[in-house]
Amino acid sequence: MTEPDWLDEREQRAWRGYLALHAEIQRRVARQLLRETGLTAAEYAVLVSLSEAPGGRLRVFQLRAAAEWEKTRLTHQITRMAARGLVAREPCVDDPRGAFVVLTEAGWDAVNNAAPRHVAHVRHWFFDALQPDQVDALIEISRTVLARLPEADRVMGEPCHEDAGACGPGLIEAVDLTPTEACDPAPTGCDDGLP
Amino acid sequence: MTEPDWLDEREQRAWRGYLALHAEIQRRVARQLLRETGLTAAEYAVLVSLSEAPGGRLRVFQLRAAAEWEKTRLTHQITRMAARGLVAREPCVDDPRGAFVVLTEAGWDAVNNAAPRHVAHVRHWFFDALQPDQVDALIEISRTVLARLPEADRVMGEPCHEDAGACGPGLIEAVDLTPTEACDPAPTGCDDGLP
Repeated sequence: MTEPDWLDEREQRAWRGYLALHAEIQRRVARQLLRETGLTAAEYAVLVSLSEAPGGRLRVFQLRAAAEWEKTRLTHQITRMAARGLVAREPCVDDPRGAFVVLTEAGWDAVNNAAPRHVAHVRHWFFDALQPDQVDALIEISRTVLARLPEADRVMGEPCHEDAGACGPGLIEAVDLTPTEACDPAPTGCDDGLP
Repeated sequence: MTEPDWLDEREQRAWRGYLALHAEIQRRVARQLLRETGLTAAEYAVLVSLSEAPGGRLRVFQLRAAAEWEKTRLTHQITRMAARGLVAREPCVDDPRGAFVVLTEAGWDAVNNAAPRHVAHVRHWFFDALQPDQVDALIEISRTVLARLPEADRVMGEPCHEDAGACGPGLIEAVDLTPTEACDPAPTGCDDGLP
């Protein structure tokens, strides 16, 4: 192995600062949301993904792609949320292995109540500290790094996960989660059957 | 509740881009490290924290503060790593409730082998995409948001966790993890006894 190309002092500060920024903000925003609404960050993420999908329903594999969660973790998450009445499971008639997750009325109420609070927390801890040109710089930094990922992945031999929205351009855009009413089978290897 | 102060389109792009940036980079860097070294991101984080401490040893509560982990999760993590021979536990003679975690020779080898690879991955997926002025902007963004956290916490009534390095200035700096050879007792409420 050649001599390691260590990060210089500036790069170290940028990397550690970026990691600390994410950890500190997420921790506060998650804790405040839990305090005010009783929802964990993971529950809120599921509710938001569902609320942005037509009819408030998604196939499990689409939810997994949106949250980048492992199947087991998401399955447990959905089980707990169904027990609390926030979501319901619906079988997929055209695809016996498939399942939909649907927002219940209580789920809609929960996300509608939580969303303005979550935005207020993000604004309080994050945007209120930043100048407009810093917001623009952040957009540009994310856009630049994300746009280069497909090429960087290819060089590194990273597998390409089409269904996770991790390939091709447009990574910075929200993953297209439009569910198909017709219960299209999940992509190969995306078994989303729930126990 | 007053009318929610929703994020405008620019703020939405900044927030979603920042979240996507973190998720996509961490996922790739973690997966590549696992592939090349067999270490998970969590294991690597523990090894790095220990390797940066004098003598490669830390009290459990210091390790928890550095990683911001819950006690249960860290306890399981250390148990698994001890079983693999990467770390060892040492009782704290002056504090029967306390324990040290120490890097073993295999642990030192593992972190020395992994560190240059990890840096290469961070460089490949992150820094190679950025211009020097973007690195500077990122330092400034993190510094600005982190520096304002104590005030933002106070306004929000957020509890202050001195031991987690979450209070006062200097958040962006590495948390001071200098262990005390004399086995000072853990701060109140920081019981770090291991089962």
